[in-house]
Amino acid sequence: MNDHQLYRLATEEYDVSFYFLYDWLREASWNFNEYRIPALTFWFIREGSRKLIVAGEEYLAEPGDLIVLPLGLAVTTAHTGGEQEPLRYLSMGIRAIIGGMNWNELFGIPIRLPLEAGGELTELVLLWKQLIHDEKAVRSLSTVSDDALFSARASVAALAWEARFKLWMSLMTKIAIPFMSAPEPALDKRVRDLCAYIRTHYERPFSASELARAACLSEGHMRATFRQAMGITPHQYTIQVRMEKAKELLALTDLPLAEIAERVGLEDVSYFINGFRKREGMTPAVYRKRTFPWI
Amino acid sequence: MNDHQLYRLATEEYDVSFYFLYDWLREASWNFNEYRIPALTFWFIREGSRKLIVAGEEYLAEPGDLIVLPLGLAVTTAHTGGEQEPLRYLSMGIRAIIGGMNWNELFGIPIRLPLEAGGELTELVLLWKQLIHDEKAVRSLSTVSDDALFSARASVAALAWEARFKLWMSLMTKIAIPFMSAPEPALDKRVRDLCAYIRTHYERPFSASELARAACLSEGHMRATFRQAMGITPHQYTIQVRMEKAKELLALTDLPLAEIAERVGLEDVSYFINGFRKREGMTPAVYRKRTFPWI
Repeated sequence: MNDHQLYRLATEEYDVSFYFLYDWLREASWNFNEYRIPALTFWFIREGSRKLIVAGEEYLAEPGDLIVLPLGLAVTTAHTGGEQEPLRYLSMGIRAIIGGMNWNELFGIPIRLPLEAGGELTELVLLWKQLIHDEKAVRSLSTVSDDALFSARASVAALAWEARFKLWMSLMTKIAIPFMSAPEPALDKRVRDLCAYIRTHYERPFSASELARAACLSEGHMRATFRQAMGITPHQYTIQVRMEKAKELLALTDLPLAEIAERVGLEDVSYFINGFRKREGMTPAVYRKRTFPWI
Repeated sequence: MNDHQLYRLATEEYDVSFYFLYDWLREASWNFNEYRIPALTFWFIREGSRKLIVAGEEYLAEPGDLIVLPLGLAVTTAHTGGEQEPLRYLSMGIRAIIGGMNWNELFGIPIRLPLEAGGELTELVLLWKQLIHDEKAVRSLSTVSDDALFSARASVAALAWEARFKLWMSLMTKIAIPFMSAPEPALDKRVRDLCAYIRTHYERPFSASELARAACLSEGHMRATFRQAMGITPHQYTIQVRMEKAKELLALTDLPLAEIAERVGLEDVSYFINGFRKREGMTPAVYRKRTFPWI
């Protein structure tokens, strides 16, 4: 493997990209009620506190805590003490797929990471604030005019911003290591190849036997190997990938649902709508309207 | 446009990736003879000097100079004074396509950038050396075992490395601004869309009328608009993209030439070989052997 191949492998295996970034100051009365998290989301609590209720479990979010909310999670928050108080937190929404798996699932990241103040956390928070600050500058460059995105100045700013975003993700991963249940996950190469195949071919329908052929395994062996490593069947993983991609299209485009279903390899739009509702607790149309009201 | 769309646009429009990285110490007698540059290559001259002869023009490369060698350039070097002396330089080979154009062509970057010592140059050289140093660590992580690439520690290192590489490119672009002939290139949106269409569809043959339809222009208008902005015809640009991709496949794979021709949308392998020879001055097989002797 030469350097370029290594780089390509690394950047393809680490599929990390950006969704949103805020410095939130929520008012004293604010709470979420069964809010569906639209992307892997990080909160760093700066002031105030809330109880988080997730799938019947309760977590306390207090100043200094890092909260990791996986894509699709339904979150309810509640006031903690007698008094209502504002909640101030940094947030970042990203996509992070490593070796075909969700970052949080791959490494086994809990919802609450109570961090200790000091070196790396200070660095992370500084970088986070700088990203929020610089994002406005990058955005303003791009809205001056369409051409402005291609000026040398815009390239300098956008490349530096992407660099800082990747550095943030590197530092975040480093800080999360002590809380991981699997910092060195053993991912069977055949399972990784299957994940990659599914992530590359989700746009059209494919059969289990096609998958098995791609991995040079018998169908039964393929299913068993995959299930053992991933905890779900290849079919369930495929549906999961298709629903993730559908969510992205719901977020990024105003395409009609029938076209979204087709683009994620689901031939039947009513199968898509029903499957989506079962997983997400709401229809794709409601999801789009609630999560991305600007589309 | 929301933040994620902006990020996606920016990262898709700035297609910057890594090929190779060295701290070279060339012996006193060393010279290149019509060496074909395999990727957009940067040299920072640290000690010694050479004359560079490129397309009949001569350039002096001396300590403190930054040399920018475009992909495919044939370079000859010669000793400068009476004495032969070793040449020490940092090198970096990358791909940098911005808005569908090669970085050096888009901004009009000369071959020799005589830099002044100081702030930004010091930062660039430090970052360059750090990348060379850390690249060994990232590479060693990946060669321990296949799984090791997916440990949290490897993710931290690889993400940080990619971040530093993008930061290097941002800083390089910033430092090059005073030497650019077009720091704010005006790229017609329709021409950019055409470039993007060609770069997305080069894998299969397509006709000029298909291109014109994609850009919502008449065929004649499409040709004229493109040619005026880019200095070459859409057909020439398409061939250029196909040859770039073919070079990448020659570098990255040991695929037979017939398959490479097919993968870059050229149906006829002898057309591929002849076209390649005309552009590069050697056959694809010789190019592969000479430039990437390890494949």
